Amino acid sequence: MGKWIVGVDLGGTNTKFAFLSDDGNILYRWSIPTDVSNGGKNIIPDIASSILQKLYENNKTTADVKGIGIGAPAFMNMETGFIYEAINLGWKDIDIISELERRLMLPVVIDNDANVAAIGEMWKGAGIDSKNLLCITIGTGIGGGIIINGEIVHGTNGMAGEIGHITVNPENGILCNCGKRGCLETISSGTGMVRQAITEINSYPESLVTTAYKQTGQLTAKIIVQAAIEKDPYALKIIDTTSYYLGLTVANIANTINPSRIVIGGGVSRAGSLLLDSIRKYFNQFALPRVQMGADLAIATLGNDAGVIGAAWLVKNKL
Amino acid sequence: MGKWIVGVDLGGTNTKFAFLSDDGNILYRWSIPTDVSNGGKNIIPDIASSILQKLYENNKTTADVKGIGIGAPAFMNMETGFIYEAINLGWKDIDIISELERRLMLPVVIDNDANVAAIGEMWKGAGIDSKNLLCITIGTGIGGGIIINGEIVHGTNGMAGEIGHITVNPENGILCNCGKRGCLETISSGTGMVRQAITEINSYPESLVTTAYKQTGQLTAKIIVQAAIEKDPYALKIIDTTSYYLGLTVANIANTINPSRIVIGGGVSRAGSLLLDSIRKYFNQFALPRVQMGADLAIATLGNDAGVIGAAWLVKNKL
Repeated sequence: MGKWIVGVDLGGTNTKFAFLSDDGNILYRWSIPTDVSNGGKNIIPDIASSILQKLYENNKTTADVKGIGIGAPAFMNMETGFIYEAINLGWKDIDIISELERRLMLPVVIDNDANVAAIGEMWKGAGIDSKNLLCITIGTGIGGGIIINGEIVHGTNGMAGEIGHITVNPENGILCNCGKRGCLETISSGTGMVRQAITEINSYPESLVTTAYKQTGQLTAKIIVQAAIEKDPYALKIIDTTSYYLGLTVANIANTINPSRIVIGGGVSRAGSLLLDSIRKYFNQFALPRVQMGADLAIATLGNDAGVIGAAWLVKNKL
Repeated sequence: MGKWIVGVDLGGTNTKFAFLSDDGNILYRWSIPTDVSNGGKNIIPDIASSILQKLYENNKTTADVKGIGIGAPAFMNMETGFIYEAINLGWKDIDIISELERRLMLPVVIDNDANVAAIGEMWKGAGIDSKNLLCITIGTGIGGGIIINGEIVHGTNGMAGEIGHITVNPENGILCNCGKRGCLETISSGTGMVRQAITEINSYPESLVTTAYKQTGQLTAKIIVQAAIEKDPYALKIIDTTSYYLGLTVANIANTINPSRIVIGGGVSRAGSLLLDSIRKYFNQFALPRVQMGADLAIATLGNDAGVIGAAWLVKNKL
């Protein structure tokens, strides 16, 4: 029996962990809250002690571990793993690899969370065996991971895959967090869907979306998705607009990099075939015929496990 | 002194050749007309005999040659070099590698012409030493070549780099040759520029563009570019629209693959800094700040030599 791999999916709220076999099967999983207080200075000690504790509980030691892979929501040097900044963790200039290696005496490898999730889907999920893969994660924002010839694309300074900031509405677009206008994320993310809903809510007094909003005082992408599944016309209109811009963007990227598979993940992807069929309709409208022929669209299948699985792949292939 | 490399840039009108040194310097260049009659059946024999003749004139034999690299306007299997179709050559199902190898007893390597031109610029031109490079060729149409981590991106079925068919005007766009509407090529190619000019020509009776059109009965991108260089307002307006869509598209691609350099080539790029500055203005509007920081924009420097130089690179690196 081979050594275990530790996969870590470091998030701003929780940190997910798994012990995996060398072929990427999850043997044991757990999570801990991420302590972002005091500039996140407890995060690395917490990760180290949590791994040691769970090894102990499983009658293992670090000698049974091959290495630790980490996906982090961080802006880093892709060669060295040095983290310049991770806003959601409160980090600036953190050498996570050295600090963890010093604590655990195990090799550590790290990449950006969107890239790691894409690798997870390539290895074990909806992108299985696709050497040319585009993954889009639609949650609060929109992230992307691109794999070409089986390798993650980082780009020249780690900015590859910033699909949420592709401009889809160059004239009079909504202001985005990034400072630009008309980014895909302003329309087709969870936040963008809620914004769409609020804009016209007074015109749809009968909608399930409006009812839920009036009852709870809240409006979320989840409410919209659920209403769409129940065939609420206003919710379906929002899904259509969301899908139109997603389909257009995915087609334009596909005309550029010609992927064999396009995987849609993140919270909004729980809309499933309703969303996927709608994206595919617009994708087919805007992608070249041979580009369409080459590409499948699919919903991500690994859910919350994509990160730890992709992180384990890094240990297997990059250490 | 090392062996020579033969670079071939196979075009629908002319075929350009060069003998190059192992480090990519052109030692000798020539060209012949491309005989596309009879389904292009003379093209391969013509290439073979022209190479043999020029070797003889240079007191060389095939024993002095390392191999032959070819860039072709063809749709091919990127693994085997088998050409499925090359519309401009009249070809269907041509095994150019076997046929040339049989005639010359030399190894042959081939790629798509846009990719080969991109490689040429990476090796010896405006993209020198850029491992993450986006090349756009603006002529009658718009083509693209993408290099990531120093390797050409072919995509899953050879369609990567079809930048001309990125949809920039999804609503009410002009019908493109590809069957879709609103492709970049319908606006920002040479053909697109002429179309822009003709649409409004009656509103600009004083323009140099209008005068040239009335005098010659013709309108070309070259006339528009020349008038713009002479600060003709109508021509400058056309350049501005052309650059707007180019800048938007290049920024969106850059947000996706994060290149270190973006090289603009092709006939229209002879407009030089006038065009480049205008594209850069819109690029900066639509690219994320760190993506902008990572990327230079430049005009291609190799002109007609890009193809033979890129073809030689294939021999050096792929055989």
